[in-house]
Amino acid sequence: MAPQLDGFFAEVDALSTQFIDRLAKAVAIPSISADEARRPDVVRMAHFLEGELKALGAQVELRPLGKQPGKEHLDLPPVVLARYGSDKNKRTILVYGHYDVQPAERSDGWDTEPFQLHVADDGRMLGRGSTDDKGPVLGWLNAIEAHQKAGVEFPVNLLMCFEGMEEYGSEGLDDLIMAEAKKFFADADAVCISDNYWLGTEKPCLTYGLRGCNYYSVEIWGPGADLHSGVFGGTAQEPMTDLVRVLATLVDTHGKIQIPSIMEQVAQVSAEEEGLYDSISFTMDTLRESLGSSTTIFEDKKPTLMARWRYPSLSIHGIEGAFAAPGAKTVIPAKVVGKFSIRTVPDMDIDTTNEAVYRYVKEQFAKLGSKNSMKVYAQHTGKWWVASPNHWNFAAAAKAVERVWGVQPDFTREGGSIPVTLTFEQATGKNVLLLPMGSSTDGAHSINEKLDKRNYIEGIKLLGAYLHYVAIEATP
Amino acid sequence: MAPQLDGFFAEVDALSTQFIDRLAKAVAIPSISADEARRPDVVRMAHFLEGELKALGAQVELRPLGKQPGKEHLDLPPVVLARYGSDKNKRTILVYGHYDVQPAERSDGWDTEPFQLHVADDGRMLGRGSTDDKGPVLGWLNAIEAHQKAGVEFPVNLLMCFEGMEEYGSEGLDDLIMAEAKKFFADADAVCISDNYWLGTEKPCLTYGLRGCNYYSVEIWGPGADLHSGVFGGTAQEPMTDLVRVLATLVDTHGKIQIPSIMEQVAQVSAEEEGLYDSISFTMDTLRESLGSSTTIFEDKKPTLMARWRYPSLSIHGIEGAFAAPGAKTVIPAKVVGKFSIRTVPDMDIDTTNEAVYRYVKEQFAKLGSKNSMKVYAQHTGKWWVASPNHWNFAAAAKAVERVWGVQPDFTREGGSIPVTLTFEQATGKNVLLLPMGSSTDGAHSINEKLDKRNYIEGIKLLGAYLHYVAIEATP
Repeated sequence: MAPQLDGFFAEVDALSTQFIDRLAKAVAIPSISADEARRPDVVRMAHFLEGELKALGAQVELRPLGKQPGKEHLDLPPVVLARYGSDKNKRTILVYGHYDVQPAERSDGWDTEPFQLHVADDGRMLGRGSTDDKGPVLGWLNAIEAHQKAGVEFPVNLLMCFEGMEEYGSEGLDDLIMAEAKKFFADADAVCISDNYWLGTEKPCLTYGLRGCNYYSVEIWGPGADLHSGVFGGTAQEPMTDLVRVLATLVDTHGKIQIPSIMEQVAQVSAEEEGLYDSISFTMDTLRESLGSSTTIFEDKKPTLMARWRYPSLSIHGIEGAFAAPGAKTVIPAKVVGKFSIRTVPDMDIDTTNEAVYRYVKEQFAKLGSKNSMKVYAQHTGKWWVASPNHWNFAAAAKAVERVWGVQPDFTREGGSIPVTLTFEQATGKNVLLLPMGSSTDGAHSINEKLDKRNYIEGIKLLGAYLHYVAIEATP
Repeated sequence: MAPQLDGFFAEVDALSTQFIDRLAKAVAIPSISADEARRPDVVRMAHFLEGELKALGAQVELRPLGKQPGKEHLDLPPVVLARYGSDKNKRTILVYGHYDVQPAERSDGWDTEPFQLHVADDGRMLGRGSTDDKGPVLGWLNAIEAHQKAGVEFPVNLLMCFEGMEEYGSEGLDDLIMAEAKKFFADADAVCISDNYWLGTEKPCLTYGLRGCNYYSVEIWGPGADLHSGVFGGTAQEPMTDLVRVLATLVDTHGKIQIPSIMEQVAQVSAEEEGLYDSISFTMDTLRESLGSSTTIFEDKKPTLMARWRYPSLSIHGIEGAFAAPGAKTVIPAKVVGKFSIRTVPDMDIDTTNEAVYRYVKEQFAKLGSKNSMKVYAQHTGKWWVASPNHWNFAAAAKAVERVWGVQPDFTREGGSIPVTLTFEQATGKNVLLLPMGSSTDGAHSINEKLDKRNYIEGIKLLGAYLHYVAIEATP
C-alpha cells in the first residue's frame, strides 16, 4: 500500500521559496554555542523555533538546562521540546536536531558572509548551519506546513527535541533525555535523527551504525619545571623522550593496532554483511578527494569501508605540555600528556578495552627503565551503536527514499560518533534511524558550509514521506 | 707581583650604596626586548648607559642597527659602544654585556614589583635584570668610578659593547661585531664577558667552554587538511603516527643518541681533563634541587658534569601542528613538525652532524613504508666554543678571584650556548673569558630574579682586580 503523497510534494515545491526564506532567517542568527559572547544569539534561535512551531500549532516548551558546567555565570541554552499531534490512533515519532552551529568568520576564508544565506546559481545554499543542522531541523517544520497548506492529514504524532549545545558537547542533554524517557518521550514508537550526511553526493543512505570512541591520555612527568636543554640535556631523563617512545608502540603506519586484546573483541564479518559492501555507492576517488591526497591505507573500496565502519582504529591526536608553536625553543618539557583515541566497534567492551590499553601502555613504559612517572587514563569513553536495519523504522525510510529519489538507499554505518543516538536508544528502548538530508560535500564544520537546494527541498519531501510510510509500516 | 688594590676595594665598599642605587635606576627601566611596546624603554636604557658613561669620562656612541627583521616598522635598539682610556702603553680589554631583559609581570608570581629593585634583609636584590645582565654591565662602570674616586690609575684601556637585543636573538649584533673587528674593536688584546653564573652558590668559576646547538625540524604531511578521526581513522595513513615513530628512534631514556656518526666525532677525554672534574664544587644534590626531582641519568658528579659539558645530548622539544591544548580533540593532524636539537661539543662538525641526522631520519622514515611525505632540516646551527684556560686572560681572572674571594676558581664549561662568545673570538681572533658575577640560584629568566648584594659588590672588585692582573700578566 502506497500513501498518497502527490499533494504534499506539490505543496513543498510551491512553498520552496518560503522554505528557503525560513532557512535564511535561521542562518542569520549566529547561534554559536562555543562562543560565550554569542550565547544570547543561541537563545534567540531557540525563541525563533518556538515562534515558528507555535505558528504551526505545535505545543512548545523551552526547557532550561541550568548553568554551564565550569562557567557558572552562563546559562545553558534551552532544549526546545515540541509536540505536534496527539492522536492515539497514530504512531508517534521522536525527532532530534540541533539549532546551534560551529563558529564562522568571513575572514576564515568564506566566499560569502557566513551568517547570510547565499543561494548560488548552481543551487548551493551557503551559510553556517545550512546543512548542520538548521536545514534538517526546519525540514520537519516545513513538512508540517506543507501538509497543512496542501490539506493533507499529518500521518503521525511528532515529538521534537532540538538542542542548542550539540557543537559544544551537548552539555546537559543526556540527563534531560533520561529524565523525560518515561514522560515527554514516553509515547515515542521510534526515533529519527537527521544530522549526518550521504556517503557521496548522488545516492541517499540510511545509517544504522556508528563507532564508539575511547579517548586516552598518557601523562609522563619528572622534573619540577620545564628545563633548559643546554643546562640539563644529557643529565636528566626527559619525559618527552619517554612519551614518543610509548606512543610509537600503539599503532603502525598501516593502521594496525599493536595493543593486544583489541582486535580479538571485534565481531566476525557475517556472510550477510560481507555481501553488503559491493553495491554501496562509494569510490576510492571520492575518498582521495575528501582526504586531499592519495595517502590511503587500502587501495580498494571494501576494506576501506570496513576499516571506517566495522573495525577499530587508533589515532594519535597530539601532545600537551611540549613546545607546539612555530619556530625553535630549546625547552625540555617537565610534563607531557599524549592524547590518542580508539574508535570502537561491535563487540568491543569499554572496560575490557580500557584495561587492555592501560596494561599495554604500562608495559611499554616499564620497558624504558625510566625514573620518570607515568599515568594512563581514559578522558572519556563512548559506546559504539548499531541498530537493526530490518526494523519498520528503516523499512519506512527506505521506501520514502525510493519514492522521493527513485533509488534504493545504501545502508551505511559511520566511522564517527553521534553520542545522542545511543542515549535515545537507551532511554526510549526504541529503534533509532539516522536519516541524512545533506551530501558528503556539504562541509559541515568547514568554511563555505552549504546545503544543496535540491537536497533541502527533496529532503523535506523525504522527511514527510518517511512519516507516511511509518504510518503504514507501523500500523500495529 | 701583586697589584695594589686596597684603595680600590675600600672605595667600592664606601660607594656600595651608590652602586646599588645605580642598579635600582637601571632595573626601573623595563627594557624588555621581546615586547614591541617596550621598545622605547629599551632605547631609554641605552641613553641611561650613555649618560652614566659620559659622566665617567668615557667616549660613547649609540650605534643604530637598522630595522628589526620581519618587523620593518620597528627600529632595533642601538648598541652602546664606549671606550675608556687610550693609553698605548696599556693593554686593551673588550667587554660585552646586554642592557635588555626578559619579560616580567608581578602577576607571573613575583614576590615584589619586578621593575623596582628590592633589597631584602638577607642581601638578595630582587628585580628583573638585576643579575641578567644589568648588574654585571654596571659592574664595569662602578669599577671605573671607584678607581676615579680612590685616585687609583685605571690599569687598562676598556672597550665596551653593550647590546639591547640579547634576550631576543641578538638581532644585528653579529654583523656589527664583524664590521668593527678591525675598527672599533681593533685594539682589543682579549675579551671578557660577564653574562653567566657560578656552578653553585659558594665558589666562583671561570668558564672556558660552551656547547653548540643544532636545532632540527622533521615535517611529515599527507592529507590536504586536518581530518576527523571518526571519519578517516583506519583508512588514512596518519602523519602523527609516522612522526612519533621517527622521533622514538632518536635517543633513549638514558640519553644515548641512536644516530650513528655523532658520538664518533666527540673528542677523547685527555688525562688532564680527566683530573679536572673531581675538585669542582658541585654535588648531585645541587643538581637534583635545580631539577626539582631525582630523575637524573647518572648518580655521580663526574659523568653528570661530562654529560653536561663535553658530550652531546639530544632533546625532543615538541610537535607543531598536532593538538596541544588541554582536553580532548579527535583530530588527525594533516601536517606535523617534530622539533629536536642536538647540543654539540668538540670536535663535532656542523655539516657532518647535519648529514648524519638527515641520513638517519630518512632511513627511519623509509622503514615505515609510509605514503606520507617527509622533510628534515636544520632550523639553526651554532658551533661549540672552547677557549684555552691557560691563556693570560684566564690566569689574570684566576688571580683576581683568589684575591677577592680567597679561593681558586673552578674552571668550568657550560652546557648551553652564548653565541656572541664565538662571534667575538672569530671576529677579534683573541682569547675570550667568561667571568660570571652571579650565582646558580639567581634565576635569570625566572620570577624573583635576584643578584646577591655580596656578589654584586665583590663582583665589582673582581672585575676591577681582573683588569689589574691583566695589566701585569699581559705585559708584553
